Amino acid sequence: MKMILAILRDEDSENVSHELVKSEYRVTRIASTGGFFRRGSTTLMIGVAENKVEDAIQVIRRACAPAIEPGTKRATLFVLNVAHFEQI
Amino acid sequence: MKMILAILRDEDSENVSHELVKSEYRVTRIASTGGFFRRGSTTLMIGVAENKVEDAIQVIRRACAPAIEPGTKRATLFVLNVAHFEQI
Amino acid sequence: MKMILAILRDEDSENVSHELVKSEYRVTRIASTGGFFRRGSTTLMIGVAENKVEDAIQVIRRACAPAIEPGTKRATLFVLNVAHFEQI
Repeated sequence: MKMILAILRDEDSENVSHELVKSEYRVTRIASTGGFFRRGSTTLMIGVAENKVEDAIQVIRRACAPAIEPGTKRATLFVLNVAHFEQI
Repeated sequence: MKMILAILRDEDSENVSHELVKSEYRVTRIASTGGFFRRGSTTLMIGVAENKVEDAIQVIRRACAPAIEPGTKRATLFVLNVAHFEQI
Repeated sequence: MKMILAILRDEDSENVSHELVKSEYRVTRIASTGGFFRRGSTTLMIGVAENKVEDAIQVIRRACAPAIEPGTKRATLFVLNVAHFEQI
């Protein structure tokens, strides 16, 4: 099990969450701000099976709108190892 | 040291936090939303010693009210390894 | 790559974020609450190269105001391993 932390532009968060849920990923959304100007961003926590990480990242990649300014990034992803996963 | 990320139903977050703090766990609460309908949820970050993970999970398990609909889950827990821990 | 999760007192979050961004660290801020009295806190997620962890912690240490009550801590830091990092 892995956890993907995806930091998205606010304008992409709706569509990315929607596409992930449609693909049956479990998504938790947290409001965040980033960078110098404290632009609003959204942080998604996505718990995924090891062999689904690439697929989930692909879903995110496709669901982010193109960057407005060339050279800027649309999303930042951190994939963390999960030592233990449990639903109660 | 481990970090437990616990995603709870809003209605449980009060009681779960309270019970964890009573058991001397250090809890940080973050407002979150989850799933298709963006139900409010609460994400707890709980830093615990390796040998206390099971106990902390037990506290959470006991403090969550029973699921209303049978078959649904009350909380999702991710346990992460902590490479370094420091208080300053 | 590592992720530093830094839980700060609200009154430090402004200065700490500012100093980190000035040192070219990428910072995502999340509003949080902690402990028994639910004091407002700020959780920073900071993605840093392995060899920059100590430096980033040093920036945080310098940017936190002194503790008002002696013996209390100003910030709690968890450093997590990042299995994969990607900007898209």
